[in-house]
Amino acid sequence: MKLNELGEFGLIERIAARVSPVAGVTMGIGDDAAAVVPTPGLLTLSTSDMLVEGIHFDLAYCDPLTLGRKSLAVNLSDIAAMGGKPRWFLLSLALPRELHTEFLDSFIDGMLQLAREFDVTLIGGDTCASGAGVVISITVLGEQRPELVVKRSGARPGDMLFVTGTLGDASLGLELLRHGKRDNLPAKRHLDPSPRVREGAALACAGLPTAMIDLSDGLLADLGHILDNSGVGARLEVGRLPLSDSFLEYSSTLAGDPLLFPLSGGEDYELLFTAPASKETAVREIMAQLSTQVTLIGAITSARGITALAPDGADYSALRRGYNHFA
Amino acid sequence: MKLNELGEFGLIERIAARVSPVAGVTMGIGDDAAAVVPTPGLLTLSTSDMLVEGIHFDLAYCDPLTLGRKSLAVNLSDIAAMGGKPRWFLLSLALPRELHTEFLDSFIDGMLQLAREFDVTLIGGDTCASGAGVVISITVLGEQRPELVVKRSGARPGDMLFVTGTLGDASLGLELLRHGKRDNLPAKRHLDPSPRVREGAALACAGLPTAMIDLSDGLLADLGHILDNSGVGARLEVGRLPLSDSFLEYSSTLAGDPLLFPLSGGEDYELLFTAPASKETAVREIMAQLSTQVTLIGAITSARGITALAPDGADYSALRRGYNHFA
Repeated sequence: MKLNELGEFGLIERIAARVSPVAGVTMGIGDDAAAVVPTPGLLTLSTSDMLVEGIHFDLAYCDPLTLGRKSLAVNLSDIAAMGGKPRWFLLSLALPRELHTEFLDSFIDGMLQLAREFDVTLIGGDTCASGAGVVISITVLGEQRPELVVKRSGARPGDMLFVTGTLGDASLGLELLRHGKRDNLPAKRHLDPSPRVREGAALACAGLPTAMIDLSDGLLADLGHILDNSGVGARLEVGRLPLSDSFLEYSSTLAGDPLLFPLSGGEDYELLFTAPASKETAVREIMAQLSTQVTLIGAITSARGITALAPDGADYSALRRGYNHFA
Repeated sequence: MKLNELGEFGLIERIAARVSPVAGVTMGIGDDAAAVVPTPGLLTLSTSDMLVEGIHFDLAYCDPLTLGRKSLAVNLSDIAAMGGKPRWFLLSLALPRELHTEFLDSFIDGMLQLAREFDVTLIGGDTCASGAGVVISITVLGEQRPELVVKRSGARPGDMLFVTGTLGDASLGLELLRHGKRDNLPAKRHLDPSPRVREGAALACAGLPTAMIDLSDGLLADLGHILDNSGVGARLEVGRLPLSDSFLEYSSTLAGDPLLFPLSGGEDYELLFTAPASKETAVREIMAQLSTQVTLIGAITSARGITALAPDGADYSALRRGYNHFA
């Protein structure tokens, strides 16, 4: 069946039928607006991300289930970067009339799969026709205690610079997909990123990070946001960048400097954060409890700008090349 | 200047520079997520609406300033329909790279103009490139006391059916625009609707409506939503439908039954609500205080379905023709 046979209200009912009622949601899908009960004393965090076919994803190598997961994941990642707990989300979809309901069903399946994993509830949104491709817009609402919210602006000279997981996989994966290589871990990381929700909240609840951001635009670009907002600089030790085994395996098959992926490639959705040097053990303990790799990759300096040092201590003149949507 | 010269971060800074800091917003534009302070004891209301070029608007007869106003207005209208007070909003924009910054500036001007009018604050969002036309996605957050939120499901047999303002102007206006007639009140109402935010909140705070919805899909379709959700029917007196002077003037120039506009035409963004018969005077007093026209157009019945009565009391067999995006 195609969407034009299902109709707008059939489509909304089809989505609503998959969402179970939960505590704290007074009104979910099906009225003019949703109504939720905010937790007393907490701030409400909100973030929106839009994914546009042909810009953010290519249906040639992106199946709808995984696209559903990723669409929510990139939004959860923004709440994680504030140290917040994501709670509710709204989904707006512009869909071509000729799209099959199987696409929609798989997309929603994937999205709700990830929603269950992180205990967030779909409470509303909008559906409409699109003249040109699929457009997905999601808003996630989260919560955190005011004193625990982690901004981009709190990095101080002497703080250490940490990153979760491994870097460069997602952008290498996209490159591999473009070369027709689908069945590999980097490609999986591009298509199906894991938002670091538990890590962000655990770090924030322990009061450890002074600044935090999720890596969507690339390490250098996103580090730049922390530095600009904090009015500081950083020394980045390129030799310490955490690289996965599959990154090393597959990047060696491509021409060019493989370090451009971890330095400038986007969409790893790892957390980049700063913490006082005295907190290093505490950071490592929390990450060990979550079985999440964490790596010290540099330090914050009072001198502005990024100094990237190669393993031999020489200056590594990497270009700042985060993905700029309008360049 | 075009957007690709401005760049994504230049674009965000350009928008952020126009937004003033306000109380209750701990963090606005410029971090991974926004943070606001919910009012203790109130529910958080949230609604999202997406506007797609070629589906919801045509840049041939829609200037960017008015488009900015309308994009926010249709979202505020959903909060109004719950009886809520809108407070904050997130704006996601997918824009063609070749778009001129003048378009963006006017669009943001219009949107922030309406935002000031209704005391709502832009706190975040997303910007990205679009391969095909402008896509606007807005999420509005509002608040209301739990016992005052008005659902679609509370209409009871014997309740009276009221509507604010006049009906059919917006859809007639769209028809006139399609015929090249721009300079008339119906066209203005299509392009620049006024959300009934004050009316919705005033009615809710007085505890008067048993059910409420905003008229986006057309009277018959939206009344249908109230009836379906409430498990009741309605008697609609077609002769009572409030029509503006300019509606009467311009609709007479078109072929066909002019009543199809107020019955089935969308986007009037008036409020349709039910209230016990004993509350009629109170409803009229509140609306008089706001200088807003309100009209009694029928009553709720225990018999399901809509019985539309012509002025002579005969059955008026109007078609239910609300705009269905996927039909």
